[in-house]
Amino acid sequence: MSRIEADYWIETAWPLAEAAGAMAGEQSSGTFVPIPGETPELKERSAARVTAIEDLGPVPGPSLPGAGRPDAPHHQARVTLSWPLDNIGPSLPNLVAAVAGNLFELKQFSGLRLLDLRLPEAFAAANPGPKFGVPGTRRLAGVEGRPLIGTIVKPSVGLDPEATATLVGELARAGLDFVKDDELQGNGPSCPFDARARAVMREIDRAADRTGRKLMFAFNVTGEIDEMRRNHDLVLALGGTCVMANLTGVGLSGFLALARHSELPIHAHRNGWGALTRCPSLGFDYVAWAKLWRLAGADHMHVNGLRNKFCEPDDSVIRSARSMLEPMFASKPCTVMPVFSSGQTAAQVWDTCAALGSPDLIHAAGGGIMAHPGGPAAGVTALRDAWDAALAGETAAERAARSPELAAALGKFA
Amino acid sequence: MSRIEADYWIETAWPLAEAAGAMAGEQSSGTFVPIPGETPELKERSAARVTAIEDLGPVPGPSLPGAGRPDAPHHQARVTLSWPLDNIGPSLPNLVAAVAGNLFELKQFSGLRLLDLRLPEAFAAANPGPKFGVPGTRRLAGVEGRPLIGTIVKPSVGLDPEATATLVGELARAGLDFVKDDELQGNGPSCPFDARARAVMREIDRAADRTGRKLMFAFNVTGEIDEMRRNHDLVLALGGTCVMANLTGVGLSGFLALARHSELPIHAHRNGWGALTRCPSLGFDYVAWAKLWRLAGADHMHVNGLRNKFCEPDDSVIRSARSMLEPMFASKPCTVMPVFSSGQTAAQVWDTCAALGSPDLIHAAGGGIMAHPGGPAAGVTALRDAWDAALAGETAAERAARSPELAAALGKFA
Repeated sequence: MSRIEADYWIETAWPLAEAAGAMAGEQSSGTFVPIPGETPELKERSAARVTAIEDLGPVPGPSLPGAGRPDAPHHQARVTLSWPLDNIGPSLPNLVAAVAGNLFELKQFSGLRLLDLRLPEAFAAANPGPKFGVPGTRRLAGVEGRPLIGTIVKPSVGLDPEATATLVGELARAGLDFVKDDELQGNGPSCPFDARARAVMREIDRAADRTGRKLMFAFNVTGEIDEMRRNHDLVLALGGTCVMANLTGVGLSGFLALARHSELPIHAHRNGWGALTRCPSLGFDYVAWAKLWRLAGADHMHVNGLRNKFCEPDDSVIRSARSMLEPMFASKPCTVMPVFSSGQTAAQVWDTCAALGSPDLIHAAGGGIMAHPGGPAAGVTALRDAWDAALAGETAAERAARSPELAAALGKFA
Repeated sequence: MSRIEADYWIETAWPLAEAAGAMAGEQSSGTFVPIPGETPELKERSAARVTAIEDLGPVPGPSLPGAGRPDAPHHQARVTLSWPLDNIGPSLPNLVAAVAGNLFELKQFSGLRLLDLRLPEAFAAANPGPKFGVPGTRRLAGVEGRPLIGTIVKPSVGLDPEATATLVGELARAGLDFVKDDELQGNGPSCPFDARARAVMREIDRAADRTGRKLMFAFNVTGEIDEMRRNHDLVLALGGTCVMANLTGVGLSGFLALARHSELPIHAHRNGWGALTRCPSLGFDYVAWAKLWRLAGADHMHVNGLRNKFCEPDDSVIRSARSMLEPMFASKPCTVMPVFSSGQTAAQVWDTCAALGSPDLIHAAGGGIMAHPGGPAAGVTALRDAWDAALAGETAAERAARSPELAAALGKFA
């Protein structure tokens, strides 16, 4: 495939071919009006093409304000556009302008959403992709054949470096595989990165001496470029095994700079993503948006969880999660570890296992571990037993009969 | 002011104080459930506070899906939250997680939009802000007391470096003050940045030898960090006077890296912004979003234009544009040049002048200049005459009587 392809859901009062043509024009050689320089040769070489239009039927009226013809009948449709690679080359920051630039504001559309994206192999060669992904993460965490059981430092902010380290030490001894900084905890004066990293790694090492296994901790390096690289280098020097970055705060060029530099898995946090997706008639499906970050070098991508405490429905969570394990390119699959979180307990394990069909995930629980009647260690055991059973085809009732920790978890959370 | 403040519009079926409290909790030390570590001392030190709630009255029902209590009565409100600076320090990438992170997905809200942002002076000290702004741009463009008259290279993509340069040479001789690359034209194989910059600057210099004034050309350097810095350095070495970057493609950390490095004004292009704003009940007002980029170092910010060809209404355009000229800090005003564009002609000049109350803008017109009956030079004259008249308090009819170029423009476009 030598062209960039993108699928959209659109809503318009214009004839569908005309509306799709306006998208293709605005996003390549065209403009609002025909201009002399846009010759047939130039269009053949550089114009985006409409390669598919599927009418999805009428809708009652415009979903978003501002479009023209508000009183005319509106239709929704699925549209595919394609672009010549030579317009932008395999550049992710420039890809955004082509597939997700001005088109959201075009007068022809009362709704427009990017659903999916397919890129030529040249993008695989030019961009880092995940350096660790599933196998690298498993190797560093020392966990095979089952999900990594994870949690987050809470309170989100407010603990100083020593208090954070004490908590992480307890979590490491409780048997967690993975712990992350909160996305709100960066490098502020009340918990400076340097002091936090040193204190936390000291406690992780201390716990590892006892347990024989080093907890993977995702240190939130979100910041300016040099700061992120410096903090990554500190984590690496201290023997840490993961860094984390907030995607919407850092942005693609900054994330690429971190990823090209990084020698550790990058835990990609999607906070702020809600603004790009929560309106069903605008923005992005996660399948499309996540491809930008997977190719840019994310190793773990958040996907929310089943019966989560946010607004996302379960089918959307599972569609997102499955897409993380689907290869993007033959030469560079860019498969990444989906991170399930938000209101997760042992009660969701069987459904999650059945829907994802893979043990390749990080299953992160806060209250589901910390609020276990037997304490955090029992909470971890309950989740591990649940996954062990689900992956072996055993029911919750069967396993609970011989796992008191799981029985207690299901009694409290199910 | 030692705290970060943000204003939101919210829509919720929860009691307003409870909903606002959930926002403050999620965005600081709280979580979905009370946890042992969240002590009164920690909350006093680190929690976000609700500092104002104004009930804006009932709404018929939820604007966005996914929130809880869909059948309960919904209210809209204006809410202000504040955060201690010490949580994150003056870091723009981390600010995003605090003020615009997970809160868009909270179950309590069927609508949530960030309206405005006020930051402690520490942010001014720690971030570059515009290095050129209005005075620096005027100095480099050689334009005082009136707007810069601008246009864009069209077709957006498809011209090779020599064809681009030929067109820019014509535009320079036609008297334009400012021309920009299209946002879709980055550094692709069909028009490589290096060759384009060299060819375009050659033609700009040639035209300047005749006209005595060097056209300001915004070269689109959008790309990865090192590529942006390298291309900036090339433009600087060639004697160019402006670079451009796509904000949504580059992101905050990358933009900060470019801005800290840059010795030229940065023309900030907001393509893709529509996805963050077009749903009225979600995302951002431009006033808030633009403050991030102004402080990060943008010198020019796009604001759309009156009676534009996109979906944005005029009152929103003017509110955005005015905010660009309002100081953010006493020590670092971060005032930037608003860029009016999209369907602009001499016909919008009087309204724009009256609404903005300032000549400090770039007024960019495509068809409004190129499609002038007398050609591009007459198109530029028409726009300059219109602004000269509007700023002097002269009516369109009065000035058209002694400016045949303006008369022709108004005859065709008004």
